[in-house]
Amino acid sequence: MAVSMMIDVQSQPGSGMDIDKVGICDLSYPIEVLDKAQEKQHTIAQINMYVDLPRRFKGTHMSRFIEVLNLYRAEIMVNNMGEILREIASSLEARSAHMELSFKYFLEKVAPISKARSLMGYDCRFIGAYAQQGDEDFILEVRVPVMNLCPCSKELSETAAHNQRSEVTVKLRYKDFVWIEEVIELIEKSASCDLYAILKRPDEKFVAERAYDNPRFVEDIVRLIADNLMKDKRVLWFSVKSINYESIHNHNAFAFIERDKRS
Amino acid sequence: MAVSMMIDVQSQPGSGMDIDKVGICDLSYPIEVLDKAQEKQHTIAQINMYVDLPRRFKGTHMSRFIEVLNLYRAEIMVNNMGEILREIASSLEARSAHMELSFKYFLEKVAPISKARSLMGYDCRFIGAYAQQGDEDFILEVRVPVMNLCPCSKELSETAAHNQRSEVTVKLRYKDFVWIEEVIELIEKSASCDLYAILKRPDEKFVAERAYDNPRFVEDIVRLIADNLMKDKRVLWFSVKSINYESIHNHNAFAFIERDKRS
Amino acid sequence: MAVSMMIDVQSQPGSGMDIDKVGICDLSYPIEVLDKAQEKQHTIAQINMYVDLPRRFKGTHMSRFIEVLNLYRAEIMVNNMGEILREIASSLEARSAHMELSFKYFLEKVAPISKARSLMGYDCRFIGAYAQQGDEDFILEVRVPVMNLCPCSKELSETAAHNQRSEVTVKLRYKDFVWIEEVIELIEKSASCDLYAILKRPDEKFVAERAYDNPRFVEDIVRLIADNLMKDKRVLWFSVKSINYESIHNHNAFAFIERDKRS
Amino acid sequence: MAVSMMIDVQSQPGSGMDIDKVGICDLSYPIEVLDKAQEKQHTIAQINMYVDLPRRFKGTHMSRFIEVLNLYRAEIMVNNMGEILREIASSLEARSAHMELSFKYFLEKVAPISKARSLMGYDCRFIGAYAQQGDEDFILEVRVPVMNLCPCSKELSETAAHNQRSEVTVKLRYKDFVWIEEVIELIEKSASCDLYAILKRPDEKFVAERAYDNPRFVEDIVRLIADNLMKDKRVLWFSVKSINYESIHNHNAFAFIERDKRS
Repeated sequence: MAVSMMIDVQSQPGSGMDIDKVGICDLSYPIEVLDKAQEKQHTIAQINMYVDLPRRFKGTHMSRFIEVLNLYRAEIMVNNMGEILREIASSLEARSAHMELSFKYFLEKVAPISKARSLMGYDCRFIGAYAQQGDEDFILEVRVPVMNLCPCSKELSETAAHNQRSEVTVKLRYKDFVWIEEVIELIEKSASCDLYAILKRPDEKFVAERAYDNPRFVEDIVRLIADNLMKDKRVLWFSVKSINYESIHNHNAFAFIERDKRS
Repeated sequence: MAVSMMIDVQSQPGSGMDIDKVGICDLSYPIEVLDKAQEKQHTIAQINMYVDLPRRFKGTHMSRFIEVLNLYRAEIMVNNMGEILREIASSLEARSAHMELSFKYFLEKVAPISKARSLMGYDCRFIGAYAQQGDEDFILEVRVPVMNLCPCSKELSETAAHNQRSEVTVKLRYKDFVWIEEVIELIEKSASCDLYAILKRPDEKFVAERAYDNPRFVEDIVRLIADNLMKDKRVLWFSVKSINYESIHNHNAFAFIERDKRS
Repeated sequence: MAVSMMIDVQSQPGSGMDIDKVGICDLSYPIEVLDKAQEKQHTIAQINMYVDLPRRFKGTHMSRFIEVLNLYRAEIMVNNMGEILREIASSLEARSAHMELSFKYFLEKVAPISKARSLMGYDCRFIGAYAQQGDEDFILEVRVPVMNLCPCSKELSETAAHNQRSEVTVKLRYKDFVWIEEVIELIEKSASCDLYAILKRPDEKFVAERAYDNPRFVEDIVRLIADNLMKDKRVLWFSVKSINYESIHNHNAFAFIERDKRS
Repeated sequence: MAVSMMIDVQSQPGSGMDIDKVGICDLSYPIEVLDKAQEKQHTIAQINMYVDLPRRFKGTHMSRFIEVLNLYRAEIMVNNMGEILREIASSLEARSAHMELSFKYFLEKVAPISKARSLMGYDCRFIGAYAQQGDEDFILEVRVPVMNLCPCSKELSETAAHNQRSEVTVKLRYKDFVWIEEVIELIEKSASCDLYAILKRPDEKFVAERAYDNPRFVEDIVRLIADNLMKDKRVLWFSVKSINYESIHNHNAFAFIERDKRS
């Protein structure tokens, strides 16, 4: 087989327009991320990797994305995202590169009364972009399941108040480093109560009462978190979204705040 | 193009084994189902259709499934599932046929106090099978989202009790006709409370208090429903499954009972 | 029960920030949409409805979203989205309103040779926004599954070329009306071949050969569609995304172009 | 707080029926599984754990499932599933226990011509059951994405043949140990071609031609695999399912064979 004679269809002159993003998506790959205790955490990422494609090129070289990924997969961290993105752009001869890594991140939690230990998994995402003219962009996304209890329902009745699982998603751009662990803590403290994989009966009592003492509308949760992110000087831009899986409806309640502190 | 000369690869002698089920799956198609008020309800089904394939045939004729579906799609009902299945078997020259239709089924609900009207959607499924030696099988599946409130949590605290959305799935084989509406009613009455798309504030109070007065473990829900299905003489076989989307955990609670009254 | 004495927790002075969007999401509701033949099509929508919430209000009134939906659900069309959004804003005393309706939309297709008829379902979305200062925004989204065949693979070998199902998503803002049917036609013509629920053998031959004669990189598909949308004077803004479910990989190929012709 | 005085609602006499399965589901937890090279592989499992509940007990003790999981999660393997299940039954004072662990399992693959290395992820599941009267049951499930090319399409045309990604799922009960790696190899060899995360151009040519030389109906794939499992004396029972994501349709082709060699 004469590989060298193969026509390089991808490099032939293309007709048409510049493409904003071209690449691969929905790739499952095992990676290792750095956690706060300075140790690596093994996890599995869903990965998207894109570059731009100027009009003169017909196609990009999809296999090179995986080659770059193979170089870095044992050491993916916030600190080297810029390096990885420049390597993608360089390897694919592109002017810009994007990468999205979605992964579960586990922390050990200690039940409030029994002190029983268990792991909680959080859906995190690194969204990075690089452009040749010098711009780098990095967004940290953290999704945290929490409990919330309806203040209106608490007011309406002496005995009961509907509560449910909610999912709060925070996205951040920052100038000084913010740990995933800090974002998780902010979200969990802003909710009616945080969640645990293991709760013994005294913990269950504590958790239900903590939620009752901290009722939160979906509006309250996003406002409390946004208030804190406004005050945090490291944060340049953020969005906060909460989806409450209402126990009294078959649809969900939703609230969203986005602020750009740079403008 | 000489269509008549095309080799019929599917009809050539196959090697190997009888195939239990071969056909199409995950087809979205608009259908009409009969509802209790004797009127048709327009909905969209996810459809699977299979036949058996004896070892002497290499392949089945996939396009014929859609042809049969086109014949019946404006009038899908429990009553003609047997007829549809026989038509599939006949059209595909098979000894057995299976069909699964999953669809949303909407009912109007009236809020308990305000009497505000809204629609609730329920995920239903018809699972039918036919075999040439005479056996027909039909399973009705109904999935109902409800609210449940934890009895243990209620006991532990004077003020609070965690509650959440649950999803209860009942499957039935019967000898005398059972309406989808009857299964929905049984499930909703067995839960701490049923759900509504619209609740005004007095309804919210009612719903939260009704749930508080009817606490249910995931075990209670499946037992209550199973008890009723045991007593219902029309029912030959059933399974009941409940998944509670726990507000205090990020995992779910699960319970399951299956009984065959024929044995 | 003294409803009138209930404390209106939602209307009490809130602390904190303006909320960009608050409302309900993931509601399944049956609706009717207008199709090109001027007849209504019954379908089921996944619905999100939001308003803004100024800082002085603690919470919004979630039940009113459903009340507005009940008014219009039998007649949802592009033409009255503005009216629906103003009704939402008015009913919830808000300065802005957003609505997203995602629904299956079915068209009859005729197989290329056998002329067999079947229905194809397309995932569509209406995304509308209204702000009191006068701005209205409307985006039409249409997602079309197609077949694509790799030009590189065709060049590399005389006998074989890998092909696969792709999903192309077009979003449009326009000044003069564009039919869903027109967007579907543009996408289907830009792919290697379009899809059908029913294909007889001569159709299969036609479809495989049509794809072979029209090989498309993921880059080609988005460029062809974008070229056409650039030339269409009705279109103000668009994005085109293609995801190819590669038959040779377990990840997908991706390309994306977005252009704002207003700037 | 007087924990000791808390009423043990779960241990009070229950009314009603024996429950077949009660427990937790959809728990994400990091685990380590043994791979063929005798080294541990870090992965993340979706876990379901159930026990039976006799009629005299009102509820089970959900937290104990996590306690058992914490004991074993760094060493989950086929060999100790029986031990884990007996520990669950013992800890929850139950007569039977069930456990389902679904996880991604990665293997290094070498591209056929370029020898480029990349990782492929496979969805695996361990399904274990234990009953006090002595029965143990274990099912190994392996899901493998492959490429298949339609033999009919190849016959119909000289130039083209539609092909697509397929997903083949094998479940096994065995008396003598079968490696996950062996099941993956059997499935990949039975398909038109196997998949890789990285393919350079000469690999792409090889893969497309290998698929063209090995056309497979959905029926062929399940038959080839079933034939081999019939002959494998270690295997007591199996099922084989293939879903082909047809490039010419928006629905999928399906085939299924199940055989119990014990009867």
